[in-house]
Amino acid sequence: MSIQPAVRAAVDDDWPRIWPIFDAVVREGQTYAYPLDLTMESAKPWWMSEPPAETVVLEEGGVLLGTAKMGPNRPGRGAHIGTASFMVSPTARGRGVGRRLGEHMVAWHREHDFTGIQFNAVVETNTAAVRLWQDLGFEIIGTVPGAFDSPTHGRVGLHVMFLPLPG
Amino acid sequence: MSIQPAVRAAVDDDWPRIWPIFDAVVREGQTYAYPLDLTMESAKPWWMSEPPAETVVLEEGGVLLGTAKMGPNRPGRGAHIGTASFMVSPTARGRGVGRRLGEHMVAWHREHDFTGIQFNAVVETNTAAVRLWQDLGFEIIGTVPGAFDSPTHGRVGLHVMFLPLPG
Repeated sequence: MSIQPAVRAAVDDDWPRIWPIFDAVVREGQTYAYPLDLTMESAKPWWMSEPPAETVVLEEGGVLLGTAKMGPNRPGRGAHIGTASFMVSPTARGRGVGRRLGEHMVAWHREHDFTGIQFNAVVETNTAAVRLWQDLGFEIIGTVPGAFDSPTHGRVGLHVMFLPLPG
Repeated sequence: MSIQPAVRAAVDDDWPRIWPIFDAVVREGQTYAYPLDLTMESAKPWWMSEPPAETVVLEEGGVLLGTAKMGPNRPGRGAHIGTASFMVSPTARGRGVGRRLGEHMVAWHREHDFTGIQFNAVVETNTAAVRLWQDLGFEIIGTVPGAFDSPTHGRVGLHVMFLPLPG
């Protein structure tokens, strides 16, 4: 039985190793509506979070397998609902990295007394992600038609997904 | 027949007169999940937009009746869908100010070749707004349950609403 590496909070020094994953995922263009002209410097505030939000990494033998960020979806009167984003290294797909990060993310929200988790924009053609979130209990609240410009599928829908976290 | 004042782009000097409306609406707490500790200075970037987004005002006889901001809902692969927010002065309600701003906002998105307009968080108990947007053709895509903490209604849902703009 192998000892599984733990998901841990990202520190500032992790960013140079997170950036290649971020860059590869955004360039691939299948999953995120981030600005398309980000550099290692300008991308940092899009991913590295300040409290009460948190960015985490999953690392194995010195290699970064994936990263996630999580925190309140809105300030003020919406701050009791969380949200999160995930990126798995293209070289580490199919190994359950997304699920490990997802399970950590749900536990994080429970620990911090959020009453639910909302994903604002899950690309409908990213079926592996949609199935994973459904496996974790998320439901599709609705789909905004044609809201994502996929390089391979054209204009596709963005799901709003939600997981209630009863207190 | 009275000459109706036009909706116009807000300039920097408008902010000191927009701020009291922003402050009153946020304090009332029925419609927006903005931070609850904003000042005139810190609130400004939450409302005064930079291109390609735009903030507008509706003014009559030197009195600001309402304001709206509009622009891309997401960057990059989501930038073809717009979004907008609206605030009507508490002293100018029931006079069609929201509708005037809303009609301007739809025309603005058409002019700028957006293919749809998404509202991310319409408070379900704000029935006047929900009906107005439905009147303008918006549909409720889905409702995130309990996502808004209303001071009078408790935890209520946030509608995601959408208006397609066929080219």
